[in-house]
Order: sequence, then structure tokens, then C-alpha cells
Amino acid sequence: MNKIDVLDKGYVRLVDVMGSDLTVANAARVSYAKESKELTEKDIKLIKFLAREDHTSPFRHAFLQFEVYAPLMVARQWWKYIVGSDHTMDAWNESSRRYITEEPNFHVPAFNEWRSKPENSKQGSGDIVKFELGEEATYRLFKTIEDAESNYEWAIEKGICAEQARLFLPAYGMYVRWYWSTSLQGVCHFLNQRLEHDAQKEIQQYAKAVIELAKERFPVSIDELNK
Amino acid sequence: MNKIDVLDKGYVRLVDVMGSDLTVANAARVSYAKESKELTEKDIKLIKFLAREDHTSPFRHAFLQFEVYAPLMVARQWWKYIVGSDHTMDAWNESSRRYITEEPNFHVPAFNEWRSKPENSKQGSGDIVKFELGEEATYRLFKTIEDAESNYEWAIEKGICAEQARLFLPAYGMYVRWYWSTSLQGVCHFLNQRLEHDAQKEIQQYAKAVIELAKERFPVSIDELNK
Amino acid sequence: MNKIDVLDKGYVRLVDVMGSDLTVANAARVSYAKESKELTEKDIKLIKFLAREDHTSPFRHAFLQFEVYAPLMVARQWWKYIVGSDHTMDAWNESSRRYITEEPNFHVPAFNEWRSKPENSKQGSGDIVKFELGEEATYRLFKTIEDAESNYEWAIEKGICAEQARLFLPAYGMYVRWYWSTSLQGVCHFLNQRLEHDAQKEIQQYAKAVIELAKERFPVSIDELNK
Amino acid sequence: MNKIDVLDKGYVRLVDVMGSDLTVANAARVSYAKESKELTEKDIKLIKFLAREDHTSPFRHAFLQFEVYAPLMVARQWWKYIVGSDHTMDAWNESSRRYITEEPNFHVPAFNEWRSKPENSKQGSGDIVKFELGEEATYRLFKTIEDAESNYEWAIEKGICAEQARLFLPAYGMYVRWYWSTSLQGVCHFLNQRLEHDAQKEIQQYAKAVIELAKERFPVSIDELNK
Repeated sequence: MNKIDVLDKGYVRLVDVMGSDLTVANAARVSYAKESKELTEKDIKLIKFLAREDHTSPFRHAFLQFEVYAPLMVARQWWKYIVGSDHTMDAWNESSRRYITEEPNFHVPAFNEWRSKPENSKQGSGDIVKFELGEEATYRLFKTIEDAESNYEWAIEKGICAEQARLFLPAYGMYVRWYWSTSLQGVCHFLNQRLEHDAQKEIQQYAKAVIELAKERFPVSIDELNK
Repeated sequence: MNKIDVLDKGYVRLVDVMGSDLTVANAARVSYAKESKELTEKDIKLIKFLAREDHTSPFRHAFLQFEVYAPLMVARQWWKYIVGSDHTMDAWNESSRRYITEEPNFHVPAFNEWRSKPENSKQGSGDIVKFELGEEATYRLFKTIEDAESNYEWAIEKGICAEQARLFLPAYGMYVRWYWSTSLQGVCHFLNQRLEHDAQKEIQQYAKAVIELAKERFPVSIDELNK
Repeated sequence: MNKIDVLDKGYVRLVDVMGSDLTVANAARVSYAKESKELTEKDIKLIKFLAREDHTSPFRHAFLQFEVYAPLMVARQWWKYIVGSDHTMDAWNESSRRYITEEPNFHVPAFNEWRSKPENSKQGSGDIVKFELGEEATYRLFKTIEDAESNYEWAIEKGICAEQARLFLPAYGMYVRWYWSTSLQGVCHFLNQRLEHDAQKEIQQYAKAVIELAKERFPVSIDELNK
Repeated sequence: MNKIDVLDKGYVRLVDVMGSDLTVANAARVSYAKESKELTEKDIKLIKFLAREDHTSPFRHAFLQFEVYAPLMVARQWWKYIVGSDHTMDAWNESSRRYITEEPNFHVPAFNEWRSKPENSKQGSGDIVKFELGEEATYRLFKTIEDAESNYEWAIEKGICAEQARLFLPAYGMYVRWYWSTSLQGVCHFLNQRLEHDAQKEIQQYAKAVIELAKERFPVSIDELNK
């Protein structure tokens, strides 16, 4: 398995990997001029020790590349973690709407996916709203997207440049596609923030796909770093 | 002057500064156990040499903090330069629509600000479109925003969480506010990319405000690094 | 006070600062379009909350520049924290011995400053050794440095290039000078590691000078981030 | 071939790799929802275009891990490029002499490897010195190392901690071992600086080993980025 579907039209795909749990143990033992060739009990104990004591540099020698297809609001939260935080071993290449490449696609919550305002917090969300309300919200959003697309197409047809025509689009829900390459430590840094209960539900679902894909390749490290 | 208006409702404000052209010269002369107290002709020659030879590390010891208020599409391009490039001495704190803090504000091009598709390129923009077309585009965008706001308010009123209600908003044009702190080198890196003729016009206008504000404080360095 | 002496010949000097505790609080409140002009009780509570919840990005908008004069072994540990860790908003410009600028200076522990091997650890150090042993160690080191300097001078005189002549020098104890510019978060990151009881004593003394100088300017933030 | 000997006792070894020239082309084409499976003429043209136009972000999605064994003075120059420059996608784990793991090893130039002071520059080196002078320099350095080792062993035996005992060692020439993991862009950034004629000869030799090993895996990218 190297691709997991997320939301109505999105996905996370593991494109490439460098290293394994063994990479972490060998990087930590650089002084000793010998490397393990396969993962022993001693290596596993070492990885647990490194994670527990927050010695994170050995986790920066293994790398993963993902392709992600997600609504822009998810992409923004993902970026924010990178720009606003302190992990910088990240590469990011993303599609843009400054020119026309593919049809715009939008995330539309199903009737039973709209969430209510949380009780005691200004941020986040609470329970699922009543069915009738969800139904109306979905229809209204379909209508909004339909109108937006027709305005967008009108503008393009009339010869307005794509970089301004996109002002008509309800962009938060629009799907964008990007490659994200980062170290094993970068993955865990992201997971620690985005699996939190107060992260937006949508990005939590992407984080779950990321952990699933990463775990197959780094079972010990992912487990220890996400405790 | 420490604030410059940009577009219909935006601005760039210089919040704080550390260092001057002299900081650059002194950092380059760290071996010599003596610092200049004021900028001499010799210091200016040294700065020119450093810029010409691409010895950029001395430019990383001076810092600037800006507050920016700009449409989301500008914010995304600004970020992209940071995440996708290699300069990482940047801090960024931005407002979000995951909870309600202030009224949403949207960028709406005036009748004579809509640009046409470029002749020979898939990206960017060409001349201003005909007045009648611009007029219609502006009105359509006003209408789109009006509808979006009414749907957004309906959703909020009905108790839908803000982080989903925002799916109705034409977010590319929505104003967001952020603090950007970076080194003098980071400013020049940004300017080099965003003053380019193929950068989107809107972000070029922000870049011009940034250079204006930075130049007053670092006249020699800004000049040399942007050659 | 902006300069503190450390070890036999070293020091830390605070060269420049941007921002204050207020900078942190304002960066965290970017959504609200209003900034405080002076630090209130509410701002202090906010800073405590940010530090406690590990919301570190607002601490990246204030900057400090230090000049440090320290033995090479301290410089290496300082660098290691930067290269091996994840904080990257650091600038560093250092003197080099690839060409001759000033007389080499060496750190020599006094008779009562030599430490014994720790009892139960492969790394670090234990109690001060007996006076007679310390005395002999100091004299041997003086002799080593004397011989090294005479070999170094012989090589330079004979026309050997400085970048190879330095092979004669007992470089771990040789003083180097550098500028270090970093964010408030970077300072705390460094302090968290280097004030630890298992850090080498020499760098702990530098860390104490750094905290002393930083605290005067950021009393609330430094206190909260170093809990 | 994955290991190349350098200097009298050092080497560079390519430990692991993620990606190929194709990775670069695919990252640049993220908008198009299709990836190439093998490198075509069109991909090669795209890579050339990216390198020429300095669009470097696609080169940050491929990674290499090296093990390096080199004198400390080389390690310091290598680090300096990382800390002082702007590329930060680097991980580094290095052996240390804070505790005893292996016998110290020292770089000793052969009789015909000592270089003279350069004619018209304060930095760098010129021609090889006369044979008799080189001979004497080598012998003196052997003697210096012998004395240093005997002082070091005396101190260790007497119970002085390793982190202070190392003050006796002529550390610039002492071999250290580290893992360096970086992106393809990071490799080229390093090569651009360290293959320069004014870089110290010793690090130039390491840079030549790095380019040799990297070229086998990224023939197009390495060629284009090092023009």
C-alpha cells in the first residue's frame, strides 16, 4: 500500500523513501566506526532512548517524499506548521492557479459532515449538525461553487488573466496538489501537531494517512516519536 | 514614514529594525577585534564587495519586522518563496479564519485594474482589459462576495463551525494580516524574486513597499543586493 | 551591563537587540489588528500561556546579536547545537586561522580547574583533581602551547602557508571570536541544552553569561521559556 | 563504487540515496497530475531549464547520505558552509572527543605536500615548498603529535576527564567521522563553494570525492548545477 484516499476527492501517496529504523541507530553511533547491517534488539533500545531523551538529530538522516492532494485550507495549515515552526528540512512544490492546468475541484462536506460551533472554545468544532441543516449547507455550497465556476469561466473566456479570474473561486475548499519531502523527524513534528484533538478534523485525516504510510517503513521510530 | 498603503485596502508597516549597514561591515570583519562606530567609505566599499562576490552571511545579522495586510493570494506567494526557497531565517504569524475575529475584507480590482491574458505565456498577465469588461468583472465580483458573505453569515448563525463555514468565501481575495520577521538577506531574497517583471502585479506592489521601507534604514546594502 | 567575562580570557557581549517581551505578545495577537504599547498583566499571562503550551512561533520575532570569544572546543559545541538541531534562524560569522590576523590565545585551566573522569559515565566530568595533579597538568599544557607556538612560528617564518602551519596548534583550547545573531527562541533553545548539568562546564559558563544578558531585555520570556 | 579515499587516512562514502534526475523533473511538473516513469529528452531539457533559471526548489526533493572521515579543520570548513550559508536541509552527526571511543588519528602532510604562503593574498596557499623544508615540517609534526599523545595519555591515566585532556591535542589535523545527509541542492551548494580554486586544497579533495559519487546517481542535475 502506498496511497490512501482522504476526504471526498483527496489522497496521500508515499512516493519515495530513504533509510529505515536502522539509519537512525547508525547515525547515533557514528563515533564507533561500525554500522549494523540489520536491526537488533540493541538498536531498538537505542532508538527508544533517543526518542525519550529528545535526541532528535539521528532522525534527520532518513527521508520521505509524499504527494498530497487536499483542499487549500488544509495546505495552508500544513505550510503554517513549516513556516511557523522550526523544522526546515522540508521541500515543497505545489500546483498553482496562476495558469490553467486542470479543472478546479472542490471539497464539499456531505450532509452528515458539517460540524457545529464548539461549546467552550472560540476555535475548532463540536458535534455533527442536524441532518436538515447539513443538507441545506451542502446544497448551498454546491450552488456557490456552480456560480463561482460560471463566473470564473466567463472571465477566462472574456480574456481576463487566470491570476485575477481566480478571485471568483471559493478557494478554501479547492483542491491543490503538492510534493512534500522531509526528514523522518519532520514527519513526526508534523504528526505531533496535526494529530492533536484540536487540529481541524480535515487535516487530522491527512495526518492519519501520513502516519499509516510512514509506519510501514519506520515502525519503531514512528511509534516512539509519537508517544 | 513607516507605513505604505498597497492595493484597495492593504498596507505594509515597518514595525521594528535591528542594525544598520554598519552591522554588515562589522560582521564581515569579525577577525579583527575592532568594530567601526560609524559608516566610512571603507565600510561602503566592503559592503559592495560582499554583495558582488555573493558573500551573503554578513547580511544575516541585521533584522526587520514587517506587518502586512494583503489578500490571501499574495500571502500564499509570499509563503511560497519562504517554504520553497532556501532562506529560513523567517518568522511568520498570521491571522486565521478558524475563529471569528474581525469582519472579512476582500480585494476587488477597480474597473480599470483587470488585466488580460498574456500573449505568449501561460502565466502572468498582459494589458488592462476594456473598460466595459472591467466594469462587469468588478460588479460580478461584488455580487460574488455579497452572496458569499450572506451564505457565510447564514452558516455561522445556524451554528455551523467557522472552520467549515469559511468554505463559502472567495478566499483568494480575502485580506489576511501577518507579521513577517526576517534578516536583511531574507528581505533581499524576497525582493529579488518578487520585483521581477513576471511576478504577479499585486505582489510586486507589496515588494515595492517593502523596498521603500527597508531602504531608509539600509541604503547601501539594499542598493547593492538588488542590483 | 552588556559584556560578561568568561573563563581565563573569554567573554560574551550583547551587541544589539530587536524587540522586547511586548513583541512576543503582539505577534501572538496578530489577528486582532491592535497592538499593545506597553506590557500589561494580560500580556504577561499570554506569554506564560505561549511558553507553557509550546507555541513558540511568537518568540521568533525578537532578535539578539552576541559577540563571543571562546575556545574552539566551546565554539564547536555551540555550532553543533545549531547544525544538529532544528533551529535555523541563526547567523554566524567567525574568525579563522586560514590567515594571520591576531596572536593565537589559548585557554589554560588553572591548577584548581582540572576535573576528574566521572564515576558512572563515559562522558562529562567529576570532581576537581588533587592540587599537585592540576599543577602538573597546567605546566604541561603551558609547555605544549609554548612548543606549538614555536613550531607554528618556525613554519610561518620558513614560508609555509598559515592554513597548514596551524596543524601544529593545540586547537581545542585556542580562542576564536564570532558574532551570533538569533531569535529569542533560538537563545532559549541554546540555553535549554547548554545549561543542562551534563553539558561541558566551559560551555555552561558561556550559557550563564548569555542568560544574564538576555534576561535584562526579555525578563518574562526568558524566565518562562527556561522553566 | 561507493567509497573514495581522500588524503592520508580519510574517505567519503555514499551511504544512501533517494531519488534520481527524474525526481527533479517530476517535482517541477506537480501541476500536471502525471509523472514520468523514465527520464526522457524532455525531462533533461526541463532540468537544464530549471538549473539555468535558478529554480532550485525541485532539486530539494532528492536526498543523499554521506559518511565522511576527515581532519577537524576540514570538518569546520564544511560546517561553516552550512551554518553560515542559507541551505538548511542538512543533518549532521559527528563523533566527539568528549569520551574515548577510538584512537586519535592525525593528518600529516607528506614531505612533498607542504605548500608555501601565496604571493599576493593573505589567505590560501601557493606552490609546494622545497623538499628539505617539507621533510623537516613533517618530522616536526610527527614529533608534535607524539608529544601530544603522550601528554594526553598521561592525563587520561591520571584520571583527568577526556573533555579537558583533549586540550593537549593538535586538533586541527585530527580525524573526525560524521554522517552528512542533505538534498541534491545542498550537495551542489557545497560543491559550488568548495570546488573553487580559493578553497583550502584539503577540502577541495573531499569535494571532488563528493561530486564523483553524486554524479553516478544524478548525472544530469550535477552537471547542470555545477556549471
